[in-house]
Amino acid sequence: MSLTVVGSVALDTVETPAGKNEEGLGGAATYFALAAANYAHVHLIGIVGDDFPEEHVRLLEEKGIDLEGLERAAGATFRWAGRYHDDVNVRDTLDTQLNVFEQFHPKLPAAASEAAYLFLGNIHPSLQLEVLEQTRARFVGLDTMNLWIDIALDDLKAVLRRVDAVIINDSEVKELTGEGNLIRGARAVKALGPRIVVVKKGEHGCLLFGEDGVFAAPAYPLDTVVDPTGAGDTFAGGFMGYLAQQEAVDNASLRRAVVHGSVVASFTCEAFGPDRLAQIDERAIAARYRAFQELAAF
Amino acid sequence: MSLTVVGSVALDTVETPAGKNEEGLGGAATYFALAAANYAHVHLIGIVGDDFPEEHVRLLEEKGIDLEGLERAAGATFRWAGRYHDDVNVRDTLDTQLNVFEQFHPKLPAAASEAAYLFLGNIHPSLQLEVLEQTRARFVGLDTMNLWIDIALDDLKAVLRRVDAVIINDSEVKELTGEGNLIRGARAVKALGPRIVVVKKGEHGCLLFGEDGVFAAPAYPLDTVVDPTGAGDTFAGGFMGYLAQQEAVDNASLRRAVVHGSVVASFTCEAFGPDRLAQIDERAIAARYRAFQELAAF
Repeated sequence: MSLTVVGSVALDTVETPAGKNEEGLGGAATYFALAAANYAHVHLIGIVGDDFPEEHVRLLEEKGIDLEGLERAAGATFRWAGRYHDDVNVRDTLDTQLNVFEQFHPKLPAAASEAAYLFLGNIHPSLQLEVLEQTRARFVGLDTMNLWIDIALDDLKAVLRRVDAVIINDSEVKELTGEGNLIRGARAVKALGPRIVVVKKGEHGCLLFGEDGVFAAPAYPLDTVVDPTGAGDTFAGGFMGYLAQQEAVDNASLRRAVVHGSVVASFTCEAFGPDRLAQIDERAIAARYRAFQELAAF
Repeated sequence: MSLTVVGSVALDTVETPAGKNEEGLGGAATYFALAAANYAHVHLIGIVGDDFPEEHVRLLEEKGIDLEGLERAAGATFRWAGRYHDDVNVRDTLDTQLNVFEQFHPKLPAAASEAAYLFLGNIHPSLQLEVLEQTRARFVGLDTMNLWIDIALDDLKAVLRRVDAVIINDSEVKELTGEGNLIRGARAVKALGPRIVVVKKGEHGCLLFGEDGVFAAPAYPLDTVVDPTGAGDTFAGGFMGYLAQQEAVDNASLRRAVVHGSVVASFTCEAFGPDRLAQIDERAIAARYRAFQELAAF
């Protein structure tokens, strides 16, 4: 099955305790697509400026990602800069330049509209609604962020009513629902629409609230986190990509999809930007999947 | 096999968002013993004052806990008071009255000395060393706290060199080793002596660092936490109690022991003090163990 993702493509400047990476390939849709391309045919819908390096385009194309929906606009590509603390769970945003991303109105080419699976990356909920008007997907996943909960809650709620699954941070669950307890919080998110809620807890793994109770997946125990940028987007890519590869979205495939999300996210953290993610293949994924089985077995 | 625990027996006054419990039965050794008694014959070594309610003694005796080593001294029992925030992961200590606990020097009766399993509850490491001089245990577990890392580090290191397993919070790992990364931190704790390190992460479950890599156990997803006091001590009781019941301490039994610790700890959080913990039986434990299997299965 094919899978469409809509979101940011960026140039990131990142400092972590392990070093610095200037103007590297970044953006939520980029990480998502690179992860999902291991499982499914991916249509990437985004926008870049005329300064976007050709080598990044080549990398995405080599991975088989369909770039028909990647708009090239006059001007500069979206840029983000951030610095991670010694505790890499904490980061400061140093700079955000939206540039051409500010004028982004996603336009899905025919093939992207027809894709059975759609992921709405973290963009303004009003744009996510525009995408929903253009899709014939039978399964829609959603990402969001604190900013939209703060300034675009009505639009966000309209989107939530129309998606199957939401992938969300634990802090966002609390902000969206006002519930301090994560179990009640996830239940409250479900009441807003999605039948599947995946709560990401960073180094503590994630929780899947599907239709058969709760599934708790650990995170892969990394003794060195080089750069966690994009780990959450990669998780979503592995999750949606795996589902798009399966016969059916059911309780068992959802649980395995969460583990595949965790598998690909663990690779992302091992190098700057998508450097490690771009190298993995089926064999590396299978080996780490077995490591997750070993990690959780009793 | 029998199991000896040395630690505090207390009267706790606890406020949580769910209500208030005044001068209830508390103390690390109490919680540990009540949990472990579901699996093994437990010798409780502690001290109480002449004001310690007879009903608490009866409860412990009804659970089959051997109180020969529970010293009764003239004076008042150790008292602790605390208040939990709406986020029950955060608490303030309102009052600590050591009372007779201040003069505690553990004395193990013969049967307690002979027990094959010993757990050193969270008391001053110099007292833990006194206990080690009196035991013939073949497997020793240890708890500690930030206070001893701060003020009694040399004694604590001497204890660590002589135990098999340490059960420790994630924040204590960071404080003890200076390592921000938990995986490297656990490795550094192992280098201090214990071949088994269990890192408790509260609502995020725990990690076992044994001799076959890492095992990640989830916490039970509770939608209402009435009172988390004693959950960590209960975890240790389930962990050590289960091991004492097995033929051997090996990789498989250690993993199951961690889950049993999580099982009994989840019950403790469901009511004030040890009220729920004191009610559980083999059947309730087995049912929740199956719920943990379902929670982690993929």
